[in-house]
Amino acid sequence: MAVFPFDIDATEGRARTGALRTPRGDIRTPAFMPVGTAATVKGVYMDQVRQAGADIILGNTYHLMLRPGAERVAELGGLHKFSGWNGPMLTDSGGFQVWSLSKLRKMSEQGVEFQSHIDGSKHMLSPERSMEIQAELLGADICMQFDECTNFPATHDEARASMELSLRWGQRSIDAFGDRPDQTLFAIVQGSVYEDLRAESAAKSIAAGGYGGYAVGGLAVGEGHETMCKVLEFTTPHLPADRPRYLMGVGKPIDIVRAVERGIDMFDCVIPTRSGRHGQVWTDRGPYNIKRAEFAADDSPLDAAIDCPASRNYSKAYIHHLIRSKEMLGQMILSWHNIAYFEDLMARIRAHIRAGTFTEFARAFGENWDG
Amino acid sequence: MAVFPFDIDATEGRARTGALRTPRGDIRTPAFMPVGTAATVKGVYMDQVRQAGADIILGNTYHLMLRPGAERVAELGGLHKFSGWNGPMLTDSGGFQVWSLSKLRKMSEQGVEFQSHIDGSKHMLSPERSMEIQAELLGADICMQFDECTNFPATHDEARASMELSLRWGQRSIDAFGDRPDQTLFAIVQGSVYEDLRAESAAKSIAAGGYGGYAVGGLAVGEGHETMCKVLEFTTPHLPADRPRYLMGVGKPIDIVRAVERGIDMFDCVIPTRSGRHGQVWTDRGPYNIKRAEFAADDSPLDAAIDCPASRNYSKAYIHHLIRSKEMLGQMILSWHNIAYFEDLMARIRAHIRAGTFTEFARAFGENWDG
Repeated sequence: MAVFPFDIDATEGRARTGALRTPRGDIRTPAFMPVGTAATVKGVYMDQVRQAGADIILGNTYHLMLRPGAERVAELGGLHKFSGWNGPMLTDSGGFQVWSLSKLRKMSEQGVEFQSHIDGSKHMLSPERSMEIQAELLGADICMQFDECTNFPATHDEARASMELSLRWGQRSIDAFGDRPDQTLFAIVQGSVYEDLRAESAAKSIAAGGYGGYAVGGLAVGEGHETMCKVLEFTTPHLPADRPRYLMGVGKPIDIVRAVERGIDMFDCVIPTRSGRHGQVWTDRGPYNIKRAEFAADDSPLDAAIDCPASRNYSKAYIHHLIRSKEMLGQMILSWHNIAYFEDLMARIRAHIRAGTFTEFARAFGENWDG
Repeated sequence: MAVFPFDIDATEGRARTGALRTPRGDIRTPAFMPVGTAATVKGVYMDQVRQAGADIILGNTYHLMLRPGAERVAELGGLHKFSGWNGPMLTDSGGFQVWSLSKLRKMSEQGVEFQSHIDGSKHMLSPERSMEIQAELLGADICMQFDECTNFPATHDEARASMELSLRWGQRSIDAFGDRPDQTLFAIVQGSVYEDLRAESAAKSIAAGGYGGYAVGGLAVGEGHETMCKVLEFTTPHLPADRPRYLMGVGKPIDIVRAVERGIDMFDCVIPTRSGRHGQVWTDRGPYNIKRAEFAADDSPLDAAIDCPASRNYSKAYIHHLIRSKEMLGQMILSWHNIAYFEDLMARIRAHIRAGTFTEFARAFGENWDG
């Protein structure tokens, strides 16, 4: 399997900026990946996602295997052709969604059997099936090892057992992934809030050989911002400096800034689109709701400084009206703007690291944050 | 008030093609106006509406006066600036929606009092208030006289009384409209299914002087396709040949083709977007639902012959998946495609009239129609 070139152009403290170079294009890091759960970034056209500044999007193995089905996507030419996104694509392993969405799970060493949250039908995921779906059927550029998302909170014993299962599943993922010159596989480091377990998970994942990147899993599951920062603080030093580090499912802008400070290169989150559908607008101070009465006559755009039609071309009063009227276009504009906001934040983070001003930027960002 | 130049380039039988020239741009006729009820064509960006081939859209006085309020739209620079549509815009008078949507109506010679269907608040519409809203506050390019939509069915006496009220309200609309060099006012001819009443309504509207166009009202209210055709058959000969004729609220493609045969130049209807939100795809044979199982693996686009990304760039299988998954993007693509289909149909109608082949086109269209 491929290990994509990862060029780090500049560092500041632990923060780094550069590019992960894939056959489908470069991913500028630190990178934010909009989530395209069911082969669509909800409410946003793919060319708008690209225009908003995204280099890569994420697809969900769990959702796509249930509907329309991974074999169906393969029959239609793979996830890129099916969805119309022709840039790099990362798929998760399905493990997290089985853990958070499905019903009647039956865990074994082999894998997990579960019932679809859509129609109750029975399905199975294992390292081998997850690799088949991600790499062969969907055709993701970056695939994730099959893992178990450790419950939170977990005792040290529980966390160890779960982490060790993910290591064994990781080895089976590597074996099943096979020889794919244009696709790469990322490890997922587990270990809950325990430094020794995180260190051991990282060391054994590195020793397994072949991974093109390293994700930190099992965070953003209710542990809170401070605990997340603490776990990152002691986990990233155990990850290879020359490989991309991906914090799964994160997060709010303040989480992203703090995680970049701790050496994270990649992020994904549904926040921009999910909160956009509910009228939320993201800013450097936190989110606000456009439905608030004060915006009824506000002729200013969402953010004239962001180079995106959604951010510049519509008045707050218009979007206020659309959201209050439950008009789809309001959700469409806010979802698009929020993605553009997150991508603009990443661009500013990258520029500050290159300029050596990221530490100051992060300090000021934290002081202004009101979310 | 202005009477916009209306150039008829070609005729075939009663069908005509040309352009109504407004200060905000030409409207190629026969024209289909997508409906932008609440200052948005549901689920479609304004530049997509334009790209789909629309020269003009329609806004709803009733909806906009209730939310966000006509004075609010005026404060924000008028409906063009508020909505982002910078081409010609037509607003209806509000009469039809008061008749079909509002509660607790109280009719008098002065006008109509009613309760909002949104929040129950009390409002009033009269010829004077409708003109103030349409011309002054929203700033429509083409305004409609305030009228009463005659109930269907109606006796001859009921239809006469209603038609005469609309004539008196029409005169008051003309008086209230005043001197507006860049805006025009259309009459609405009523009279239900009675030829003598339609003829009288037309003659007295013409005699009133100053109208820039003539609408046929009180149709598409349950009378059925054949009755609609019959009423048009005997009504359009009473309308001035040199002024645009507008059939309000129509309709399906077959209705449009039959009405063009009978001399109609303008149409509006919510069908493209409303049915698109429910998975319906419009074609020359009628609509079909993309949710049908046969489309699950259909890799073909909706209609490669239509010059619109929604029609060409997505497989039926992808849209089938999106609509089944209740993904907004499915509704967005189908709404956009359906508008493009209707606009493409109008372009073909115009071309056939210019080529002298419209009669044959209409005959074949009717034979193929399966809706």
